[in-house]
Parts: sequence; C-alpha cells; structure tokens
Amino acid sequence: MQALSQESAVREISDGSIISPKGYKSAGVHAGLRYSKKDVGAIISTVPANSAAVYTTSLFQAAPLKVTQESLAAGGVLQAVIVNSACANACTGQQGYKDALEMRKLAAGKFGLEECSVAVASTGVIGEYLQMEKIHAGIAALEPKNGAESAEDFQTAILTTDTVMKSCAYEADIDGVPIRMGGAAKGSGMIHPNMATMLGFVTTDACISQSVLQKALKEVTNSTFNQITVDGDTSTNDMVLVMANGLAGNQPLSPEHPEWDVFLGLLGSCCENLAKQIAKDGEGATKLIEAEVAGAVSDQEGAAAAKQIVGSNLVKTAVYGADANWGRIIGALGQSNISLDPENVDIWIGPICMLKNSEPQAFSEEEANAYLQKENIKISVDLHNGKGRGKAWGCDLSYDYVKINASYRT
Amino acid sequence: MQALSQESAVREISDGSIISPKGYKSAGVHAGLRYSKKDVGAIISTVPANSAAVYTTSLFQAAPLKVTQESLAAGGVLQAVIVNSACANACTGQQGYKDALEMRKLAAGKFGLEECSVAVASTGVIGEYLQMEKIHAGIAALEPKNGAESAEDFQTAILTTDTVMKSCAYEADIDGVPIRMGGAAKGSGMIHPNMATMLGFVTTDACISQSVLQKALKEVTNSTFNQITVDGDTSTNDMVLVMANGLAGNQPLSPEHPEWDVFLGLLGSCCENLAKQIAKDGEGATKLIEAEVAGAVSDQEGAAAAKQIVGSNLVKTAVYGADANWGRIIGALGQSNISLDPENVDIWIGPICMLKNSEPQAFSEEEANAYLQKENIKISVDLHNGKGRGKAWGCDLSYDYVKINASYRT
Repeated sequence: MQALSQESAVREISDGSIISPKGYKSAGVHAGLRYSKKDVGAIISTVPANSAAVYTTSLFQAAPLKVTQESLAAGGVLQAVIVNSACANACTGQQGYKDALEMRKLAAGKFGLEECSVAVASTGVIGEYLQMEKIHAGIAALEPKNGAESAEDFQTAILTTDTVMKSCAYEADIDGVPIRMGGAAKGSGMIHPNMATMLGFVTTDACISQSVLQKALKEVTNSTFNQITVDGDTSTNDMVLVMANGLAGNQPLSPEHPEWDVFLGLLGSCCENLAKQIAKDGEGATKLIEAEVAGAVSDQEGAAAAKQIVGSNLVKTAVYGADANWGRIIGALGQSNISLDPENVDIWIGPICMLKNSEPQAFSEEEANAYLQKENIKISVDLHNGKGRGKAWGCDLSYDYVKINASYRT
Repeated sequence: MQALSQESAVREISDGSIISPKGYKSAGVHAGLRYSKKDVGAIISTVPANSAAVYTTSLFQAAPLKVTQESLAAGGVLQAVIVNSACANACTGQQGYKDALEMRKLAAGKFGLEECSVAVASTGVIGEYLQMEKIHAGIAALEPKNGAESAEDFQTAILTTDTVMKSCAYEADIDGVPIRMGGAAKGSGMIHPNMATMLGFVTTDACISQSVLQKALKEVTNSTFNQITVDGDTSTNDMVLVMANGLAGNQPLSPEHPEWDVFLGLLGSCCENLAKQIAKDGEGATKLIEAEVAGAVSDQEGAAAAKQIVGSNLVKTAVYGADANWGRIIGALGQSNISLDPENVDIWIGPICMLKNSEPQAFSEEEANAYLQKENIKISVDLHNGKGRGKAWGCDLSYDYVKINASYRT
C-alpha cells in the first residue's frame, strides 16, 4: 500500500507501452504457431539493462523459465526477451529444455548478443513440444523498432485466450529528470499467481542496480500481480520481468534515495495497471471485481481475505448475475484463515451497506441490482480488528468461461 | 484408507436409509419456507443415542450449529434432530441465535424430550431470518414414522439446490449380531468442506460410547466428506451428525475391539457413499470426477493433491468438454503445496496414460474423448515419491453451474 503513497508524482502516459522509456524497441510476427495471429515477439534494449524477474511457484516450472533464470544468474543484465505464444513448452521433459536453449541461441544470434543477455518466455498449451522450425523462421523475421505499431506487434504476439492487448506506461521525475516505465502483459486463464504471474514485461530507463530492482519487484508484485485471480489455477509459466537500462540519467536508485517512493510508485502503478487489465480480461469475464478489506490484523491478512473474496466461484457467479448475495462474501471470508470477529463485520457492495457489525441491513434490491450491472464492481469489508488493509482483483464467472475452457485445445 | 480395508465385511442395504438401523423414525413436511417442496424434517431415536458431530471450520458458524454444540455438550446424548431448508439462519446475529434456540424448544416440546436431547440444523440462504411462525407450524405437523415414505419425506425436506435425494445404508456383523448404519445428506453448492461438510446425518444401532464415536467420525470424515469439493467454497452451516442408539446389542465398540475395523468400514462406507452422492449432484454437474493420487510422501499429501485436482476450475471445465487436457492436472498438482519430483510424475485419464515419468505420451484423442463422455471419470496420478495415497471427489463445471448461481436468491 505504501508503495502507492507517492502516486500523485506519477503521471500516466496515454497510449504508452514497453517502448515508451528511452532505448527500447520491440517486434512481433506470425510464425505459424497460431492459426493467423502473431505468435513470436521480442523486446530489445539498445544498451545492457539491469534486470529482475519473479517466477511462478508452481512445482512444474516450464523450461523457458529455467533458461531465463540461467541468463539472469550470469550477471543480472539483459538486452533481449524472446517470447512465443500458442505453446507453453511446459512438461516437455529434456526435449523442452533443449528447445528453450535453442530459442535463446537463435535470438542471441539474430540480435548479435551473448546468450546470457537473452530471456525466454513461452505461453500456451502445456505438454506439447515447440515447433522449432517455425520458431526459427519467426525469430529470423523479427525487426525490432521503436514505434506504436511495433509495440502492438509485441503485445499481440504474446496473447493466448486474451481478448485485448494489455499495456501501460507511466512517468515521474527523479533527480529532476523524467523516468519512464512501460509494461506489457498477457493472461486470461490459469490466473492465480503466487509470487509472480502470467507473462508481464516492464521496461524502464531508470538507473537502478539489479539487486535493488529485484527487491522492488518482489515487493510490488506481492500487492499487484499476486493479488489477482481468474480461476484459482496457477500457471507453470508465470513470470514478470523488469529491465532497467539507466538511460534516463538519474542517480542510482535505492531505498536510501530521497525519491525512492516515487520509483516504487512508478513500478506499483505499472504492475497494478497490468494486473487489473489481466483480471478484467479474465476468460469469459464481463466485469472487473475489486475487493478491499480494511480493519484486518495486518496488511497480509487484509490482502489474503480480499483475494479469497474475488476468488470465490459463488461471489463471481453472483456478480455475473447482478445478485447482491452478500452471504457468499461471508462464505469466502469465513474460510480465509485470518483473524476476525464474526460478530463485528461490515460489508458493502459498491456504496450499499449489506452488513453492519454483523447484523443484516435492509437495502433496496433494485438499487443493488443496478449497481451490479456496472463494469467495475467494488466490494468493501471492514473487519474492525486492526489497521491492516488489502486489495485484490478478479472477474465474474460467466457462461463464456465454461465455453472457452470446455474446449481450449480444440 | 485403512478404514475401508474391511469393506468386504460390509454389505450395502439396497434402498436403505437413516431409518434402516433399529429404533429410528423420521418425518418431513412442507411448512411454507420453500415454494412447494418439503422444508422441515426430523430424525427421532426411540431411545437415547450416543451422538457425535463435526462442524464447519468457517469463521462464521451458523446459529443452529452453536445450539447443536450446546446440546451435545450437555451429555453427548441425542434423541432428535430438527432440520429446515430454505434459510441457513447464518449471519443473523442475536435474533438468529434466539430463533435456533426456539426451534430446539419447539421440537423438544413436540417430541416430549429435554431440550438438550435435540440437535438443530438449517440450510439455505445466508443472512435471512427464519420465519418462525412457519417453523412452528412445520414442527407441529411432523409425525415421525418408520417407513420408506417417511425416510423420503426427511431426505427431501433437507434439500436446497440438490436435484436428487442422498441416502444409503450398510450392514455388518459385529459380535455375531448385525449392526446397521444409515445416512442422509444434502449438498450441491458451497461445497468444499473442511473438517465437516454440508448436512450429513448418520444413524446406527451400534453400541459405542460418545467419545469413541466422535474420534471415529473425525477420522472417517477426513477421508470422505472433507475430500469432496464442488466449488471451493466452504459453507457456514456444514455439519455431520452421527447417532448410535445401541439397539443392535453388540459389545461396546472401541479401537481395542477385534472388529473395530468392521465398524470403521461401516462408517467409512456410509460417509464415502454420501460424499460421492453430494459431489455427483454438484450444482450443474453432469459427471462425477474421482482423483486418486499414489506415490505421495504421506496419505495426507496424497489426499491434498487429489483434492487440488478435483477442485480446479480448469480441470472441471475440461472434463465437462470431454477434453483430455492433462496440462491442467499438472497445473493443479504444481500448486498443491506437496513434495513431488517434477521430473517423475505419471498421469492417467481413465485407462489412458497421458504422462509417464513426466514425459508426454502419445494417445488417441478419439479414445480419450470417448472415455471423457462417461458419467464417472477417474484421474490417476503416481508421484513415485513414497507410499502415501489419497482420493478426492468433485464434479465438472458446466453452463448450468453459472446459471444456477447467477441468480440463486431470485
């Protein structure tokens, strides 16, 4: 929460993207992994960028994540990220690992970089092998540029069941110079990140060391990407990667820097923005649900309770049906494994109080139904139990979620 | 698992119910809480029955559960259970607690019992008050009997969104005398029990002390009711209650009794049978999914992994769509928080091997699709990591789940 306290210093750049900060280019092409959409993309930094990443906690980490970890372990500096959609290259054994290494090698050759300067990411079906001849041709065809079109090319190349591209960019002044930060993400199903999420790419021209960047990313991820859920399922391929190439010309950033909170605000704004875009574009979703829990014993418990609410199938279907069934919020809170006094809980749906000190309140069903027809639904809870608070984001559960997932592979 | 090793000694009684054991009667009437269906029911033991119960771990325990706990605390002996559907009497504050006490008092008066001999259970919408004048009239109209019709009256009176009644009965010989055990349950949504589940009622004519019965119930519940999930949501009203009136004439049962395992087999068969009936009748369900995980470090981890699989929305929608998308089973296992070697896992869907030592196997999509059209789907996993194993039961996620839950209250 504190990360966003300096939010006022942070300005959103309209139509901004991962190439808004200085020194970044991107590209995306159709390599034939998907029927007709773009499916191979890359982000390039013209100079070496200190980079940090967080990865899925799934016990089955996909091969490309292992290769990316090896690249970062070599020195924490990247200049390129190569990504494909359609195939996750997860649970593909030794062959999958070799394919991910080969993908890195092809990208390094194409862009004239050392292999350890390249990160690899894949997203799509689990358990199928990469079609390497198509990957080969796709990488050969990439022509990274710095223009609105090349940003869109990358943003579309990383999508799977997503219905919209996800990008954003922010700017703030640090040491009197403008620092920019841009982001792109994909994610629509198998969304219940833990310590990392989906594919998220953040670029910045800030000057910051790799180790400080890694710490900042972990902190911000916990209150942003890790607080969204679409279906409670954690992917094998989740990763958020940040590159910082230092071209903005600020003094090196660290928690001791007087404007450290501005930097956290930039990173937080970027990650929260992308996280909400992912939640809102959840498979079959028609609405974004934000839950905010106040009065918790700690921020951690507030965040856990909020995530339990947006993760409940019963809350999600009630929101889909615009039914103010607050008993389901109680159901979710009751199993959230946090400290609460069952006799002293308040619940609001939007501006309408449903429960006050655990006593049901009379409310207008018509008014509640009208509120629940909106696109952005807010659920607020006060536990009157402390000063902790947390937010989480999810989406409603619709017929289309079932439709999309009953035949994802076919 | 061991509980079921003596299963061969246990015989199922076809068309059996909670009144199959000696000395039980039941009833159910339409009191007007529901539009036209029966909504108030009772089970009566003609003699005092040592009784045990397990309750929801939800932090918001409903008022009737508190009253039942008070009854059992008075001596562990019950002679009647009074149940209503349509209204859960949960999150109803002081008024709800008074109403549950009043419901117990009315039943005690009707059946000529002390109040502490009566257990109370409610199921339905959270956050609405009981219509006490209807409860009053309903209890007054109850005429418990020992006949097939009166068993059905009770079984229907406890249902909400359930589409079928849930009952069973088993018999086994202990000390050379036949011991019978019967069960009734309800539950279709908000099903993700923890330490107890839904409403489950088990009657037996076995002779067994209250404290031993309580321990046996806890043990059996963990591997049966607690291993089902419909939607990942834990109810405020879950309860399983067992009454043992001793009329069978066996020696008092305890773990030292040579036929203790036969008794556990009876209780286990009864609870597993009801649990599977609940999972199969999950809201909108078209199929029962059973997951069995072998080769786990412990039975506990095997059970946890199995429950994670049947709880995954993505697995559930794939089964609904008859899509052999085993990557989603990997997704669920990967976040199940157990010890496993990601390089050495086997997965079968029915008889078809999908993954062997973590290498994808070629399989016939046609054959897999044909298997997944069946009503009972088995998913098997071998972790090659130990001797632990566990089972769990769930159902597929269909359009009808969304339909039912988008407008439950209206």
